[in-house]
Amino acid sequence: MTVSKESNASAAQLVFAIIDRYEPAVTAELHRALDGKTNPSYTLMRYHFGWEDESGRSIEARKGKLLRPALCLLACEALGGDWQEALPAAAALELLHNFTLIHDDVEDASEQRHGRKTIWSVWGEAQAINTATLLRLSGLGHEPDRVLKSVQMLDAATLLLCEGQHRDLASTNTHRLSTQDYLDMIEGKTAALLATSCGLGAMLGGATEEEVDAMSDFGRCTGLAFQIQDDVLGIWGDAVETGKPASDDLIAGKQSYPVVFGLAHCEGSQRDKLVELLAQETRDESDVAAARTILDDLGVREESERKALEYSDAAIASLDKLGLQTKWRNELARIATFAAQRSA
Amino acid sequence: MTVSKESNASAAQLVFAIIDRYEPAVTAELHRALDGKTNPSYTLMRYHFGWEDESGRSIEARKGKLLRPALCLLACEALGGDWQEALPAAAALELLHNFTLIHDDVEDASEQRHGRKTIWSVWGEAQAINTATLLRLSGLGHEPDRVLKSVQMLDAATLLLCEGQHRDLASTNTHRLSTQDYLDMIEGKTAALLATSCGLGAMLGGATEEEVDAMSDFGRCTGLAFQIQDDVLGIWGDAVETGKPASDDLIAGKQSYPVVFGLAHCEGSQRDKLVELLAQETRDESDVAAARTILDDLGVREESERKALEYSDAAIASLDKLGLQTKWRNELARIATFAAQRSA
Repeated sequence: MTVSKESNASAAQLVFAIIDRYEPAVTAELHRALDGKTNPSYTLMRYHFGWEDESGRSIEARKGKLLRPALCLLACEALGGDWQEALPAAAALELLHNFTLIHDDVEDASEQRHGRKTIWSVWGEAQAINTATLLRLSGLGHEPDRVLKSVQMLDAATLLLCEGQHRDLASTNTHRLSTQDYLDMIEGKTAALLATSCGLGAMLGGATEEEVDAMSDFGRCTGLAFQIQDDVLGIWGDAVETGKPASDDLIAGKQSYPVVFGLAHCEGSQRDKLVELLAQETRDESDVAAARTILDDLGVREESERKALEYSDAAIASLDKLGLQTKWRNELARIATFAAQRSA
Repeated sequence: MTVSKESNASAAQLVFAIIDRYEPAVTAELHRALDGKTNPSYTLMRYHFGWEDESGRSIEARKGKLLRPALCLLACEALGGDWQEALPAAAALELLHNFTLIHDDVEDASEQRHGRKTIWSVWGEAQAINTATLLRLSGLGHEPDRVLKSVQMLDAATLLLCEGQHRDLASTNTHRLSTQDYLDMIEGKTAALLATSCGLGAMLGGATEEEVDAMSDFGRCTGLAFQIQDDVLGIWGDAVETGKPASDDLIAGKQSYPVVFGLAHCEGSQRDKLVELLAQETRDESDVAAARTILDDLGVREESERKALEYSDAAIASLDKLGLQTKWRNELARIATFAAQRSA
């Protein structure tokens, strides 16, 4: 199934409009969490968010996508809550996401600052900042048991993220990964934080436990759709639209749903050839083209797109358990559909 | 002021008897937090605590001192609480302390596991384990606002620990540190976690805010006394008693209260000589003896011992604001006195 570029562009615009609605308030909350402190983790994050240059001077900020905060706040609103009262949770989710993104920066920063011994303190601090940000929920009038539940949910997400990261690294250069192994891995790496974003927002919006579970499941399935489509774009994406070289993931020899599925569904000399191409230290243009031809012959692109849609359909099915107002139901469904069908 | 070896040994025995009273329950709680998980941080901690060998096989455990958990549980009892209900907090404090101790192990473990990229996940996990351990307080019947307050207190302590670590590293090879700078640094590195141990125990024991503050201050002053006496032993300690080479800190060129005080209170050629001795890449036996002679001439040992006692007296003064039962008051006072007067 292919979606025309035009409808794709307008679907993207509609989704970005939803996310952008929350952007100024989320950015202000992130500033509240990070401004005015001089410890390495704080300065590093202000630099990472593009607020400051390397010497700590303010610069015009580039805007990030802030998908996780938006899902959290939208889920809160959808369940009848005041999204402004969920802002500390939205900011904590974005901080956690970014701390996992910038390990190399952290380590480089640490190297400059008296070697490897600072690493624990930078990461310790990072996690402490997340928690401190989240605890500001108390000041916004949430009951202690609700704030405590938020701490528990963010903590569980942190553990899942770390597990996913370990699995990812342990799987590099393994050509025996089943598609289920791969799905388990992206469950932790990508889906867990989107699930928590949605579940946490719902909980703070006053949802029942069943509603929190359904909303978490919506986020989880949206995350899986998002990651599988990301993998499709990493091989078959249009370089102009994605802003990355075509077949970028094949050039890098990266594990992805299409590669794992392809390896699990070919045999004999075709499999030997694919393993050989992927196992090489580097791949030139003709290697990448050969690997892509094998994947194309196996129908892997169609299967991957089908899988992404299966998850976005499951996300919408979870949503439909919730009896939401049409406005909120449609906005959330639009995000899930976009996750599976986007071209960038 | 010098205390005879005999009275010192019996003071130590009395203090260890207090700490050991809680040891089996704390160890069981630590096992509950760490057993049965296979992620790197869990296996690393079981190895670090001496429960498992490098291949994960159970071995006979060496016993750690568990000072922080004991202070937490003693403070809880002293304020009329049930110490068993504070066990998750005691375990979380010990975990936090140990995670800060083993950064080198963490990094070595990470190197073995696909390089530097695991570091964030190991530390992220470490912090998540602390929080998860603490959250078990809910299951022991504490009200949500009390559990939440515990999360806040541990989080604040984590930030102070990280700050202390940054200051420590930033101060290496600086010969212009004032004694106040040094005290600020050990405040974060050592005193903050002892303050939180005592304050958290008191809070969980049902103390008022004023009582929590007084008990925190007791822990803080005890921590400062402990660290300054540690510094004294690092230069003038008996190698047989401390188990470390005599003048170990001078050999290593380590910042410590005596060195900082000495540098701040000498002038002219004596100061030039001391700076030169300490600034060298390495120091031989005669360098160490020369540095020690200068510090002795300046009366630095007496001043340092006086300072340690000043803090243990302040700790006991905080205690006396609390109107504790004599039994608890005396046990806590005994720990503070020992911190300043111990010979090992």
